Amino acid sequence: MPREELVILDCWVSPFCMRVKIALAEKGLEYEAREEDLFGKSDLLFNSNPVYKKVPVLLHQAKPLCESTIIVNYIDETWPSPPLLPPCSYGRAQARFWADFIDKKVFDAGCNIWRSKGEAPEEAKREVIGILKQLEEALGEKAFFGGNTFGFVDIIAVPLTSWFYAIEKFGNFKVEDECPKFSAWMKRCMQRETVAKVLPDPEKVYEFLIMFRKMQGID
Amino acid sequence: MPREELVILDCWVSPFCMRVKIALAEKGLEYEAREEDLFGKSDLLFNSNPVYKKVPVLLHQAKPLCESTIIVNYIDETWPSPPLLPPCSYGRAQARFWADFIDKKVFDAGCNIWRSKGEAPEEAKREVIGILKQLEEALGEKAFFGGNTFGFVDIIAVPLTSWFYAIEKFGNFKVEDECPKFSAWMKRCMQRETVAKVLPDPEKVYEFLIMFRKMQGID
Repeated sequence: MPREELVILDCWVSPFCMRVKIALAEKGLEYEAREEDLFGKSDLLFNSNPVYKKVPVLLHQAKPLCESTIIVNYIDETWPSPPLLPPCSYGRAQARFWADFIDKKVFDAGCNIWRSKGEAPEEAKREVIGILKQLEEALGEKAFFGGNTFGFVDIIAVPLTSWFYAIEKFGNFKVEDECPKFSAWMKRCMQRETVAKVLPDPEKVYEFLIMFRKMQGID
Repeated sequence: MPREELVILDCWVSPFCMRVKIALAEKGLEYEAREEDLFGKSDLLFNSNPVYKKVPVLLHQAKPLCESTIIVNYIDETWPSPPLLPPCSYGRAQARFWADFIDKKVFDAGCNIWRSKGEAPEEAKREVIGILKQLEEALGEKAFFGGNTFGFVDIIAVPLTSWFYAIEKFGNFKVEDECPKFSAWMKRCMQRETVAKVLPDPEKVYEFLIMFRKMQGID
């Protein structure tokens, strides 16, 4: 696959962009990541994702794909080896259920903590912990969400954890204290080169959010 | 496929349950629909969908599947003929994009109309019409969302239209006046036996919502 065939309209701090980059790395595919200026988005982004006007967009042979979970699914269907989704349709439905759960819950719950003025509300913290406990239950005694190997749900979930250090700082709590099994899974994922290479330094995410809060007049 | 192998935990008025019933009918599969009492849900529902505790649940050989869009995807993967999703991965990603768009937008926007006390806010009506206009654009000059044949996105979208008569009544507007192409697509879908058999009488949906509003103290 020549490099120029896969282009990501990217943003280093977006967990949704990280998903696409991890999935491509898992498939051993090279790509070009074009950093978007979120305060002056490119015409290519507007034209490629006219509905949401958001990163990530994956351009595959110039054809645009939008929405990170759908893009990861597309990558898995287009380059089947090694597989990210389970082989049987029931396993795939379960993986899609948890990916969808993560999409609906985790990012927004985290935002309720770092977006709050002054001390983060206890309710927002309880919500994040409750969601992570549900994910711990789905993980059970398995190494990864799909079993022994890193797969689809892990790719959907792990980028969101790059914001946890910042969320812990703003919320004054520790994920590890509340959800040790989830925390162990995070560390397991970070041992994977495809993940470690893509996830940004948590300290930089924290600095970005401090700046972003100032820009939004939160702080 | 013997009848007892497929059970839907159902509710006649839920557009999300209708999706599953239409998909099964498209595949020529028989099923048992068990009507749930939404004010006294069964233990089977609680145990089958512990995360959301919501209908629909599809029990396939007693194994539970949750979330209607994921269930329709599962049905298509388990019984591939006739296909609901397009054959190529790019087409499938596009279908999933629009299904996801519908999931994120249509039902909630409709609720903002029928849930409002007194006259429905103009903004809520404008939002519904705006969403339908985006869907009209996705439809373009095609007969169905996927092209010439009724498919995945149509199954996700059409059940939501069974609430439009009620929404029009509460909102005092007509979808047909605002979105004639979307309206023509609705009629085209209703000519299909699998749809016509599953979608309830719009008048009954309206009566249900009048009752529901009273119960919720809206009216």
